[in-house]
Order: sequence, then C-alpha cells, then structure tokens
Amino acid sequence: FREAAERTAVPGVATGLAVTGSGGDVLFVEATSVPGGEKLVLTGQLGDVMKESAQIALSAVRARAGEYGLEDDLFENRSFHLHVPAGAIPKDGPSAGITMATALASLLTGRPVRHTVGMTGEVTLQGRVLPIGGLKQKVLAAHAAGLTDVVIPERNRADLDDVPQHVRDEMAFHPVMSLSEVLDVALEPAAKPVDVAL
Amino acid sequence: FREAAERTAVPGVATGLAVTGSGGDVLFVEATSVPGGEKLVLTGQLGDVMKESAQIALSAVRARAGEYGLEDDLFENRSFHLHVPAGAIPKDGPSAGITMATALASLLTGRPVRHTVGMTGEVTLQGRVLPIGGLKQKVLAAHAAGLTDVVIPERNRADLDDVPQHVRDEMAFHPVMSLSEVLDVALEPAAKPVDVAL
Amino acid sequence: FREAAERTAVPGVATGLAVTGSGGDVLFVEATSVPGGEKLVLTGQLGDVMKESAQIALSAVRARAGEYGLEDDLFENRSFHLHVPAGAIPKDGPSAGITMATALASLLTGRPVRHTVGMTGEVTLQGRVLPIGGLKQKVLAAHAAGLTDVVIPERNRADLDDVPQHVRDEMAFHPVMSLSEVLDVALEPAAKPVDVAL
Amino acid sequence: FREAAERTAVPGVATGLAVTGSGGDVLFVEATSVPGGEKLVLTGQLGDVMKESAQIALSAVRARAGEYGLEDDLFENRSFHLHVPAGAIPKDGPSAGITMATALASLLTGRPVRHTVGMTGEVTLQGRVLPIGGLKQKVLAAHAAGLTDVVIPERNRADLDDVPQHVRDEMAFHPVMSLSEVLDVALEPAAKPVDVAL
Amino acid sequence: FREAAERTAVPGVATGLAVTGSGGDVLFVEATSVPGGEKLVLTGQLGDVMKESAQIALSAVRARAGEYGLEDDLFENRSFHLHVPAGAIPKDGPSAGITMATALASLLTGRPVRHTVGMTGEVTLQGRVLPIGGLKQKVLAAHAAGLTDVVIPERNRADLDDVPQHVRDEMAFHPVMSLSEVLDVALEPAAKPVDVAL
Amino acid sequence: FREAAERTAVPGVATGLAVTGSGGDVLFVEATSVPGGEKLVLTGQLGDVMKESAQIALSAVRARAGEYGLEDDLFENRSFHLHVPAGAIPKDGPSAGITMATALASLLTGRPVRHTVGMTGEVTLQGRVLPIGGLKQKVLAAHAAGLTDVVIPERNRADLDDVPQHVRDEMAFHPVMSLSEVLDVALEPAAKPVDVAL
Ligand SMILES: [Ca+2]
Ligand SMILES: [Ca+2]
Ligand SMILES: [Ca+2]
Ligand SMILES: [Ca+2]
Ligand SMILES: [Ca+2]
Ligand SMILES: [Ca+2]
Ligand SMILES: [Ca+2]
Ligand SMILES: [Ca+2]
Ligand SMILES: [Ca+2]
Ligand SMILES: [Ca+2]
Ligand SMILES: [Ca+2]
Ligand SMILES: [Ca+2]
Repeated sequence: FREAAERTAVPGVATGLAVTGSGGDVLFVEATSVPGGEKLVLTGQLGDVMKESAQIALSAVRARAGEYGLEDDLFENRSFHLHVPAGAIPKDGPSAGITMATALASLLTGRPVRHTVGMTGEVTLQGRVLPIGGLKQKVLAAHAAGLTDVVIPERNRADLDDVPQHVRDEMAFHPVMSLSEVLDVALEPAAKPVDVAL
Repeated sequence: FREAAERTAVPGVATGLAVTGSGGDVLFVEATSVPGGEKLVLTGQLGDVMKESAQIALSAVRARAGEYGLEDDLFENRSFHLHVPAGAIPKDGPSAGITMATALASLLTGRPVRHTVGMTGEVTLQGRVLPIGGLKQKVLAAHAAGLTDVVIPERNRADLDDVPQHVRDEMAFHPVMSLSEVLDVALEPAAKPVDVAL
Repeated sequence: FREAAERTAVPGVATGLAVTGSGGDVLFVEATSVPGGEKLVLTGQLGDVMKESAQIALSAVRARAGEYGLEDDLFENRSFHLHVPAGAIPKDGPSAGITMATALASLLTGRPVRHTVGMTGEVTLQGRVLPIGGLKQKVLAAHAAGLTDVVIPERNRADLDDVPQHVRDEMAFHPVMSLSEVLDVALEPAAKPVDVAL
Repeated sequence: FREAAERTAVPGVATGLAVTGSGGDVLFVEATSVPGGEKLVLTGQLGDVMKESAQIALSAVRARAGEYGLEDDLFENRSFHLHVPAGAIPKDGPSAGITMATALASLLTGRPVRHTVGMTGEVTLQGRVLPIGGLKQKVLAAHAAGLTDVVIPERNRADLDDVPQHVRDEMAFHPVMSLSEVLDVALEPAAKPVDVAL
Repeated sequence: FREAAERTAVPGVATGLAVTGSGGDVLFVEATSVPGGEKLVLTGQLGDVMKESAQIALSAVRARAGEYGLEDDLFENRSFHLHVPAGAIPKDGPSAGITMATALASLLTGRPVRHTVGMTGEVTLQGRVLPIGGLKQKVLAAHAAGLTDVVIPERNRADLDDVPQHVRDEMAFHPVMSLSEVLDVALEPAAKPVDVAL
Repeated sequence: FREAAERTAVPGVATGLAVTGSGGDVLFVEATSVPGGEKLVLTGQLGDVMKESAQIALSAVRARAGEYGLEDDLFENRSFHLHVPAGAIPKDGPSAGITMATALASLLTGRPVRHTVGMTGEVTLQGRVLPIGGLKQKVLAAHAAGLTDVVIPERNRADLDDVPQHVRDEMAFHPVMSLSEVLDVALEPAAKPVDVAL
C-alpha cells in the first residue's frame, strides 16, 4: 500500500493505471530532465502509440506552459527522459497520456504528485482528455494498490457503473475534461515560501 | 453537437472529415508550435501518405505565407507538432491536407477555425486543392456532427448529387480550388484591434 | 485543357509525362524552398529511383548554377521541397529527372514554365539527358492534355516514329542532349526590367 | 578468482551477474567517457531492453548527480560509451541496470568498484532498485567467481532461501532499495587528499 | 565511339568498366561538389558494397590529398555527390573504386579524365589497387566503346591472356598498384598557367 | 611474402588474422582520419559485432590516449575511417579488435606497424585483450603469409599446442593481456628526433 507513496515522494513521478492480460495494474511514469539537446528519450519498452503519447504529453505541457504555472523557457535547450518501469515489460496504448503529462508538470513545477491519486486518460495536443478503455479493471487495480483518488475522463463517467459499490464507496472519482483539471487534482500545492521574521 | 465548437475554440484546431470502415467521421487536427529546431512532429498513428500530407501542408503554408497574412519569419527556427486524435486509431490518405494546412494557419494567425466548418481536400505544394473520395459519407458525418458548412474541392462538386436532399438543404457547401479560398471560409476574422479612446 | 496552364502559372511547377498501368499521363512537379537547413524534402509517394532522381536534379542544377543563370549562393542554407501530386499515388523511375530540374530552375529564376510544354528525360549529375521508355504513351498523354511542345531526349528521337501522324502534326518535339537545352525550351523568358522614364 | 580484481582495478568497471542458458555468469560493465557530443555509445551485442537500461542508468546518475557526489556539469558536452564483453555474445534484460549505473558513477567519481562486489538489479529513472529473476543462479556464479559481496534488490531478499547454506555462509548479501545504497556498498572510498605538511 | 569523349569533356567524370548479366559494359561515374555539410550523396541505385566503395574512394583521395596535388582544405565543409547513370539500373561491387576516386580527383584538380581511358579496380583506404573479376568482358566492352587505354590492377595482369589478340593489339593496358599511378594515366595534364607578357 | 611489408609501410595499417570457411587468412585493417565531425566510418562489409568492435577499439585508444603516447586532443573534432579489404567480402566477429586499435594507434602516433607482426584478439573498452577462436588456423595463415611474429591473447596460450612444431619453430608468439603490450610488440619505435648540433 505504500509503494505509490514512496514512488511519488519526489517530483516527476505520476501514478497511472493500465489494463494487462490478467486485469488491471498500477504503473509509474518517471520523468527527468537535463540541460541540452531538446531530445525526448523514452524507455520501458513502449509501443509506438505510447511513444507518440509521450510526445503529445510533452508538447501539450509545453504549448500551454503558462496555463500550468510554468515558464516557457523552462523547455528551451533542455531534454527530457520518460521511463515506465518495469523495463522489460512491453507497454502500449494512449491511456497513459495524462499520467505522462502529469509527471512532466510535476517535474517542472517541483510539486510532487499526491500519493493517493491514480489516473487514466488520453491527452490531446490542446490538453483535452479523451476516453479510455478498461475503466473497471483500472479502478480495481487502483483500489488494490491503496489509491483513494482516481482521475478519469469525463466521457468515461458512465463506466463507473461497472465498478462494485463497495469499491466506489471507498474511493473518490474525478472526471475531467482537460489537463488543467488533472493537474489541479493530482499535484500537491506549490510549497509556500516560508515567512521569515526579520 | 458541441464537440467541434469546444475543440476549435482555440486557434490551431481544424475540423476534418474522414471515411472509415463504417461510414464517415469527423476528425480534429491539432497544431502547436515551439521555438527551436524546425522539426515537424506528427502523431496520431498517421500512415505515410498522411505524414507526407502534413509536410506538404506545412510547406504550402510557409511557401506562400504572405498570401495568407503570415510573416515569413514566423517559421524560422520554430518546430511544429500536428496531432490527429484519437491516438490509437491508424489514419492515412491525403484528404486531410487542407485541414492540416488550416490548423497551421489558424495557429499562426491566432484566428480560430469557425466551429461550424468541416473540410476535406488534398492540398498541393502550391496551395491547389485536389479532389478526394468518399464525399457523400464525409458530408453525412459532418451533418451528424452538427456542422453546417463544408469545404470541398471544386472537382468534387458533382459528387454532391449523391448527398440526400434534406441534408443538402441544411448545409452550405464551399467548393474551392485553392488554399486561400479554404482559409477565407474557415478562419474567423482577425480580431480587430480595439479602439482605445484617449 | 487548361490544367497545365493553371498549374504552371507560378514559377516552380513543371509538367512531366509518365507511363502508368493504363497508358500515359501528365504529372506536375512542384518545387518550393525555404531558408535554413539544406534539406531536400520529397513527397508524393516517390519510389527510391525517383527520390534519387530528385537529388540528382538538385545537384545538377546547383553544380552548374551559373550556366542556368543562377547565383551560387541561392542554394546556401536553403532547403527544398519537391512534391508530385496526387499524394496517394505511388510513382517511380528516373524519367522525371528533367522535369524536377526544370521545376527547381523555374523556382530559382522566377521564370514560369511555358504552359504548352511537357517533358520527359532522365538527367545526370552533369546535366546530360538520357533516354527514357514509353515515349509513345507519354506523347499521346501530352497531346490529350492539350500540350503542344514536348521535350524529349535526343536518343529517343527515333521513337517518334511510333507516334500517329495526326498527333505529330499538331505538336512540336524538342530533342535535347543537355539540361541547358531543356531550360531554353521550357522556361518563359526572364521578365524584362521595366524601363522607367525619369 | 582474480579476474574481477583485475578488471575492476581501474574506475569505470563494475561486476554484474547474469543468467545464461546454462546457469549464471559474471559480466563486466565497462564505462568510458570523452568530451563532446552528449552521445551514448553501447556495445556488446546488447538487446533493446538492455540498451534502454543503459539510457536509464545514465539518466538516473545524471538526474541525481549531487546525491552521488558528482558535479552536474560533469555531464555537459560529454559522451559516454558502455561496453559489456564478450563482444560477440548477445545480452539482454534490465537486470544490469545498477551495474551500468555503478560503472558510470565509478568512472565519474574516480572511485574504483570494490573487487569483491557483484551486483544485480533493475534501476529506475529515480534511482529505485527493482527486483530481478534468477537470483540463485546469479549468486552461485558470483560465488564461483570468488566474489564475497552481492548487492541484490530488497524485493529479492526472500529468494536467498534458494541459495545453498554453505554458499550463503561464505558471502555477504546487501539488499538495497536505491541506487544510493548500491554505490555505498560498491564503490571504494574516495581517495583522501594527502595531508601535506608545510 | 564518341560517348566517352563527350561525357568526360568536363572535370569530374571518369569512365569505368562493369560486368553485367550479358557481358561487359562501360559506365560513367559523375562527381560534383557543393559547399557545406561534409555529406556524401550517392545515387544510381548503388548496392551496399558499391556505396562503401564510394566512401573509401572519398577517404582515400582526402587522406593523401597532397600526394594527388590537392589542398587539404578543399574537403573542409564541402559535400560531394557521386552518381552512376543510368539511374534505374542497380549496380554493385567494389571494382568501380578507382573510377570513383578518379572522378573525385578530376573534379578537385579541374583536370578532365582522358577520354580514351577506361578503368577497373578496387581501391583501398591507403590508395592501393586490388584485383577485380571479369577482366576479359570489361576489356571487350572498353574496346567496343572505342576506348584505347585500360587501367587494370597489377594483380589482374595475367588475366589479359584471355583477351583476344586482335583486341590487345589495338589497346594499351596500364597495370597499376596504387591510385597515384591511376591518376597519372587517367588525368589530363594540369592546364599550364598562361604566360602573360607585361 | 612481401604483401604485409608493402601494406604496412605507412602508418595506419595493421595486419590481422581471420578464420574463413576454408582455413585462416591474413587481413589488413586500414585507418585514416580527417578533421571535423567526430564520426566513425566503417567499410569492408563488416557485420554488427565487428562494427561494435571498431567502436570499442576507437574508444579504448581514446580513453587511455596518454598511456599510448597520444595527446588527448588528437581526437577532438576529428573523424576516423576504418576499412578492411577486400571490400566485397563480408567479415564479422570481435577478434580483429586489437588489430583495429593498433591501426588507429599507428595512424595517430605516426609509427608504422612492424611488417613481420600479425595479431588476433578481442579488445575491451579498458584495453584488456580477450581470447579468440581459431588460433591454429590463424597462426598457419600468418606463417603462410611470411609473418614471423604473432600477437595472441594470453588466454589463448594453451591453444598453441595445436600448432605444428615446425611452424612454432619458425615463429615467435607474443601472448598479451592488454592493448599496451600489443602496441609494444606491434609498433615500430617512434622516430627519434634528430640531434642537431648547434
Ligand atoms: Ca503499433
Ligand atoms: Ca488504452
Ligand atoms: Ca503506405
Ligand atoms: Ca482519402
Ligand atoms: Ca526500388
Ligand atoms: Ca521511366
Ligand atoms: Ca527486444
Ligand atoms: Ca550502356
Ligand atoms: Ca549487400
Ligand atoms: Ca566487381
Ligand atoms: Ca549480427
Ligand atoms: Ca572471432
């Protein structure tokens, strides 16, 4: 139950939800960044849809940086690396889009992701959140992993009917239409500058 | 009925029309741009004809920038990203050419695309609009999505005969020969500078 | 009959002739250019022989720029895009070499291609014109498209015997050995500077 | 028994453990670095999971350079080469992640790897150590090679039960959760600056 | 008989000899060069052995530029294009190595290739000439094309026995061991600076 | 018998030993270098193991340049080309590693390779020499080619038993553990600066 808490203790890690052959699973998206090159390195045996998803996430965050509280020039002459462990397990699909965007936004704002939050949703270049499949399995996996808040696409709201009542009772769901809403739910508040008495 | 309106509320999104296995469909082309690199990033599982189409759209807009009200140097040392959701659905063909060009022109002029307008047509490097297939299905999809204006290639004008009369009655068709005409129909007027009393 | 005229009204478009599964056809090569990068972008589903042909055409025009009335430094830090519509139709073969070179020379001199002229011929790096196949079908296609002047390789001169007499009577043929001769036939005269009375 | 000692005598070489078709084996990861380019060259017939693993190792060390006693700017405008002999034997999998990271950290700190230490573990971008397979075979191979200290992922601790008692008696095991702990075990202390009497 | 003379009238074209499915043939290697980039563009449907051969030819000429009367800095920040017409015919093999090197040396010295000379031979990075196959067919093709001088590898000297006596009587053979010897035979003398009376 | 002497007369060529389908053979590795780019061009139809081997050889020589009497900055902004004739014969395997490293060291020190020396051995990034296969065939090929000194990996010393006594009697074997030892055996002494009386 403590894995998500440990993983997301530092800025740059977001908790996603996936469908696997045998149900749902929690995955962690890790983001780091280094000066130089403006490259996007992707690891974790990502399929081509998921690689595109990462490019979309980066462009979406960058294109509307101001809206997310980021300086434009944070991205200039800077490379990013997104990794989705475990390294040997192939992964694909667009539904980690908002998780990738959130990991990047967390990294760049320095605000950690709330450790109770899991999320699933395709993101578009304009920051819209599109529906995904397998909502029931994903929610069950989030529940099993001890997550209490799940960000879902607005257009998947109806799929919550398939989630058993006792699970729904123990969780909060956050249907969203835009990346802005995702970040509002997912990111810890910015650290307040400490007042210093003089 | 409100999806196209929401999607195209910001500059850089244009509404296209596609033929799918089961009829026609509306698709949205999203464009963003960042300083640096002069790269063209393409996502949305685009096939090679459609990737070329995107390159043609960018070159066509750039080559005749002045004609479309754009400064030449808008393109210098600047990269573009075109995305066509949904991210997991393969797409191909040349008929989104004018939609891609329109998304780029919208982005660069800051003029949103009119939310009632859908469009289909291949574009050439010189900005000519070439005919496409599947006009009837595309028009029906536009109608179903609540669009009221459809930009079509001049050389597809005869295909409008196949569109049922009651649909034609509720829509306006704009046959065009050039990208200039597409943009005249599709883009909202440039925001007028506000008069400021002194 | 007016398509070639419309297409070639602006500098950078040349009219080529191709053999297809069902006879001959007219194709248009479009060239544009932008500052930066010295890249050569090729679109139109070109096969690898035709892509090489485009590289040869660019190098041939550039290597002997002076001979064609072009400044050397026109090419420095400048990228080119050659497109051959229609975008979804695969094309291959070396015989559009002189058409590509002509489109580039037209673009760079600002002299439009004469709208009555179609052409076919392989070009070498030194600007020689090599023979091609399918001359009869190509000439018939040019005739059907309303073209009246056809540039052909000198070494295809004998193949004109296969063209029906009534077609030959209505057309002029220009057998050439070098790219210089192609451009002499194909390009409109340079616009004369307007005399201005003082 | 002296191979690991010889191999790791210089900074930049770390001793890993692998599973092969016929049991376990010891492998050596060699790292070098040269100024210029910020490239990552990988040799040793590495499979794509292992290549990604190397990229993760480099990013992980770089992203938290300060934590490992490294200056940030050590990485700027510098290329790295990781090699895993023997050169003709294909290798794959994520479990050399911490070995690669250790070879890099050793190279950059100038601290050699302790020659009694072998290690196995996947590393994430945030420096977490994930579990691996084949622990028993790997430990037996380490034992046979004369290694006395084995770094293993915390989450593989239970797998030590499968290792024969007499082997366990002769070795020390170091279960770790983070790359920091790996480096604490694996690297020789930094050379102390020599006191110079004045 | 006049093709080689016409082709090689300008510097940068050398006459090679090839074996085809149906005997031997003459081929022409064309070289051009433009400022910028240090790229090597290769066209003519060259196979991978022949592409490597072109790289070797360029490196060989560059590495010993002084020996061939070339300034070192001729190569700096300059790109080369080698083309072997006809553009649609696949070609492969190492035996055009000296022809490619000669075309480059001709281009860079401004000395045309003697129009009576054909040549065949693999070249190494150090400018050595290695033996080739099909000497008889190549010599017969040279003879048929009206060439009178054939440069061959020293180690193919014995293969001249297979050439019919009447052909040998009408041709001169130049067995060589090094690229220097090739260029001595193949290039026209450097144009003498014209004495100008003052 | 004189081929190796001729080949290695200039710095940058080293004599290697290979196993072929029909026994052993002598091969020559040629190295050249030009200013600019920091590329590594590889020709000779090298397989991917052998290409990696070349990268390792370059990195190994560069990483310990000082140990081999080379200035670090010799490598900066400089490209290398390694070629292994004959150009049409595919080659693969790691055992030319020390030959490639020696060719590079010879080129960069200006010290020719001793013409009596052949060598075989895999090299690692740290300059260690690993064992190879086919020692007997390689030694016989060296003997047949008139070489008298053979550099072999220390760990292949036992394989000398398989070499016929009369061959062993006529040759000297140099088992080595490191690239330093290879170069000590293989390179001619550095030309002594001529004493100049003042
Ligand atoms: Ca796929
Ligand atoms: Ca999905
Ligand atoms: Ca395709
Ligand atoms: Ca289409
Ligand atoms: Ca092909
Ligand atoms: Ca053709
Ligand atoms: Ca794989
Ligand atoms: Ca011929
Ligand atoms: Ca091949
Ligand atoms: Ca050959
Ligand atoms: Ca291989
Ligand atoms: Ca071998």
